[in-house]
Amino acid sequence: MTGNSKHQDKTASVELVERRLGRQNSKLCLYLDWIRNQAGVEVREYFTVTSCDHRERDAIHPLSTPTGVGILPIREGQVGLIRTFRHPIRDWVWEVPRGFADENEDIRTAATRELLEETGLECAPDDMVELGFHHPEAGILRARIAIYAATRCALKAEPETGEIGLGDLAWIPFDTALAMADQSEIQDPTTCIALYRLLRIGHIDARKDKRA
Amino acid sequence: MTGNSKHQDKTASVELVERRLGRQNSKLCLYLDWIRNQAGVEVREYFTVTSCDHRERDAIHPLSTPTGVGILPIREGQVGLIRTFRHPIRDWVWEVPRGFADENEDIRTAATRELLEETGLECAPDDMVELGFHHPEAGILRARIAIYAATRCALKAEPETGEIGLGDLAWIPFDTALAMADQSEIQDPTTCIALYRLLRIGHIDARKDKRA
Repeated sequence: MTGNSKHQDKTASVELVERRLGRQNSKLCLYLDWIRNQAGVEVREYFTVTSCDHRERDAIHPLSTPTGVGILPIREGQVGLIRTFRHPIRDWVWEVPRGFADENEDIRTAATRELLEETGLECAPDDMVELGFHHPEAGILRARIAIYAATRCALKAEPETGEIGLGDLAWIPFDTALAMADQSEIQDPTTCIALYRLLRIGHIDARKDKRA
Repeated sequence: MTGNSKHQDKTASVELVERRLGRQNSKLCLYLDWIRNQAGVEVREYFTVTSCDHRERDAIHPLSTPTGVGILPIREGQVGLIRTFRHPIRDWVWEVPRGFADENEDIRTAATRELLEETGLECAPDDMVELGFHHPEAGILRARIAIYAATRCALKAEPETGEIGLGDLAWIPFDTALAMADQSEIQDPTTCIALYRLLRIGHIDARKDKRA
């Protein structure tokens, strides 16, 4: 989904002049980027946060593969959401199960793995309905999230505990979840976009009471 | 929109043990947070990125006010989107005009200011239709974006040039923009959520051909 030339403003294009590693933890790298556009406007320490799996050389190319996954499980007209405490905002949010894709991991495999780890739900990769992708905050994060709806999953295991902040899975009627998204009671964009796109494609499993 | 007790898993709650400033640029602060949940799981250098306007003391409280705004301008059934080059993903995206709120700035004032700066469109604060909010990536960013649709705006000025990556405003029929969101041709979550929520509330100005 790289841009087409028709709508590109050449003066807006941005060159990476120099990159320095600012900080690194076990999952993420912060780069301090010196960038400049063709009008000569520059920023010397632009924050770019990226998975450390992505090599520095990648940064001059468009992000072509997903870096993470979000999966909306669906069962009998209900969707599964996790009540999660997110430290940066110091608050509880409703989220689809989600996580990072491992380096070189097939993205559907990543989606089934994350779903199983966080919820205990096992689902065939072929039962994942594609709901496109999004970039959570392309002004800071080198991240693209692939979004799926997961149908026909079976509870196979206890969720792996330990991921910090992660709470329990709750099953919520699809129309209730939609209303929660409309009212900003769901604030996570992956979750909102999953619900709205599922509504737009009219997936039958999402609305049990409207089945033929 | 802080969490209600009914759906909170106490073991998932996360304590901030210690915070260090990792890096800072002209707009953002990266904190390295030592956090721990009640089961004893801890992360020593959790990345929290936040506007430097927010004092460190705020970090132990839920984020109660928006830190940014996204505004979808609407005119005669068309929506205004900006073709923007985003350095972290090294690609062009379609976005609503958006930006940071200044410290202590009224959020509707911030929305009208950002819209004027980025597009030259002037709009009365009262003509902003509230479309709720979202947290772009609550796993990293202490950020909440207030979303508006802006109706009855008038072109008052040339946009201020200079913001790096920012291209030209394009007017796109609402249904075309919706299809672009459905197809992941729009990948910015603020823009997707604005379009979908506007569809859900059925705002009349968005669909000129359906007016009575």
